[in-house]
Amino acid sequence: MTPAPTPDRRLAVLGAGSWGTTFARVLADGGAEVALWARREEIAREIREQHRNSAYLPDHRLPETVHATSDLEEALDGADGVVIAIPAQSLRGTLETWPALPAVPVLSLTKGIERGTDARISEVIAAAGGAAPQRIGVLSGPNLSAEIAERRPCASVVAAPSQELAEIFAAWCTAPYLRAYTSTDVIGVEIAGAVKNVIAIAVGAAVGLGHGHNTTASLITRGLAEITRLGVALGGRPETFSGLAGLGDLVATCASPLSRNHRLGLALGQGLDVEAAAAAVGQTAEGVATARAVADLAARIGVDMPITRAVVAVVDHGESIDEVTTALLSRSVRPE
Amino acid sequence: MTPAPTPDRRLAVLGAGSWGTTFARVLADGGAEVALWARREEIAREIREQHRNSAYLPDHRLPETVHATSDLEEALDGADGVVIAIPAQSLRGTLETWPALPAVPVLSLTKGIERGTDARISEVIAAAGGAAPQRIGVLSGPNLSAEIAERRPCASVVAAPSQELAEIFAAWCTAPYLRAYTSTDVIGVEIAGAVKNVIAIAVGAAVGLGHGHNTTASLITRGLAEITRLGVALGGRPETFSGLAGLGDLVATCASPLSRNHRLGLALGQGLDVEAAAAAVGQTAEGVATARAVADLAARIGVDMPITRAVVAVVDHGESIDEVTTALLSRSVRPE
Repeated sequence: MTPAPTPDRRLAVLGAGSWGTTFARVLADGGAEVALWARREEIAREIREQHRNSAYLPDHRLPETVHATSDLEEALDGADGVVIAIPAQSLRGTLETWPALPAVPVLSLTKGIERGTDARISEVIAAAGGAAPQRIGVLSGPNLSAEIAERRPCASVVAAPSQELAEIFAAWCTAPYLRAYTSTDVIGVEIAGAVKNVIAIAVGAAVGLGHGHNTTASLITRGLAEITRLGVALGGRPETFSGLAGLGDLVATCASPLSRNHRLGLALGQGLDVEAAAAAVGQTAEGVATARAVADLAARIGVDMPITRAVVAVVDHGESIDEVTTALLSRSVRPE
Repeated sequence: MTPAPTPDRRLAVLGAGSWGTTFARVLADGGAEVALWARREEIAREIREQHRNSAYLPDHRLPETVHATSDLEEALDGADGVVIAIPAQSLRGTLETWPALPAVPVLSLTKGIERGTDARISEVIAAAGGAAPQRIGVLSGPNLSAEIAERRPCASVVAAPSQELAEIFAAWCTAPYLRAYTSTDVIGVEIAGAVKNVIAIAVGAAVGLGHGHNTTASLITRGLAEITRLGVALGGRPETFSGLAGLGDLVATCASPLSRNHRLGLALGQGLDVEAAAAAVGQTAEGVATARAVADLAARIGVDMPITRAVVAVVDHGESIDEVTTALLSRSVRPE
């Protein structure tokens, strides 16, 4: 795991939460010099001075080739590429306070659908970040952050509007423990990465209610069908959903008690209301906001998403999770 | 959970292992009078006298409407239907010692591919049991036996050559905690149910080697692709593999430490050889024999099944599981 002695590219990672910090380390392990922008100066300072982000990645040291700053201009100075790891629902507001992103490739690590606009993250980056869609890509896959932080081998999918751009992003992600596969289905990869968090809440809730693997496997099966229906209606390709960014990510997220969305669902299933459940999880569970956005979007374009609707019924309409889950289980398995 | 006071159908369940005994209880909970045939008289006697099968279902009492016998003729006497739950590799030999099965619907619970002939179980039942293929169906789905024994709600798929017959089988499986959905894709449901055991061994091995959810999710994703390739080549329908009998069963089996095949793989991954691993698991891990049969079959018809080949390399050719898994992980994720 020796970093390349002379970094051959300089990448700016914007956002120093768990995933942004973990991925800054992945990029550094792949040979890049990384400028990691943190909103809060105390996080930037701790990384600069102690090579550690105790708030979001407490158990791992960051390499010397990750430089942190809370000064955006400094982070972007001389960057060959930009990596976005800012939470979905605050991304637009953040980008709008900034000057346009530099004219380099931009890779989104952010998962979600923007509430209110129903926009995908790459669309938010284009609109609010002043970046041409032709240079925006997305990364998604079975990539539990805590396992990647342990440098366990895994694979991911980078999608971009062109194969050439996807290959540039794949070259950034060349850490010895990460294989990035290319795709040109930006829509499919983004929808899969966003909606899986909603299904993970439902699966967590089923576990919290005491259901077993037979039930969660049924939910995952119907959940992937629901994600695929939405993604294909929006222009994604069916094969994306049966691949690593679809099925792979869904299974990893739903299997793992490490996932925040799974833990949120678990807390809901155990009887907490949504505020108490969110407090128990501590960090943002992206799936809640995305569930609302996806339910709106699906209703608007006429796609049937019963699991997503059930999650929204619990988190927004105070319905009892066990009633919803019972209805959903009896409904979720229709004649095959 | 009150059984119907007057059983409206009489079903013979042939095979009193874990799954046969558990399913006899499901059928009884659905209102049938069940004759459970056990090869060993001591098991039949314990069930008759104590309503218990301590060898295979120690923690659960069987209803009074499950009658056990080791006399085949008695078990089949007056049966409106036959349910087969005899291990795949001994099924033909067993059927060949018997007279032809009665001319009633026959539902197979047995999972596997017969070694040597590459036959599906319904084909073995037709050939060796003297049953017309038009009256043979199969049941498969995310149905971990231990969870069904706890009467936890789940769903399954019953497939038969005609919708009418599939509906007859679905009517047998009307226990309050089981929903049976119908299909006419017998080939797809049988292949999915058999080959998932092979993938479960590979996933168990990855866990035994210390890999995390990112890795196992990638294996499940590539595993389903591999199962689907084989099933479609043999005449199954693609949608079967993305449904409960395909994805659903695969995820349940791979997720659960309850699965024998998962446990066998785990033991292999922890460094035991195949004999020691089999001894550690105790019961038959069907996936080993099926892996051999599937690898032969896939080679013969030209379907690429790298995960299955890797499992066979370990169990039959003494290759080291960590070398095979490493090769398989780097191979199993190709450009999407």
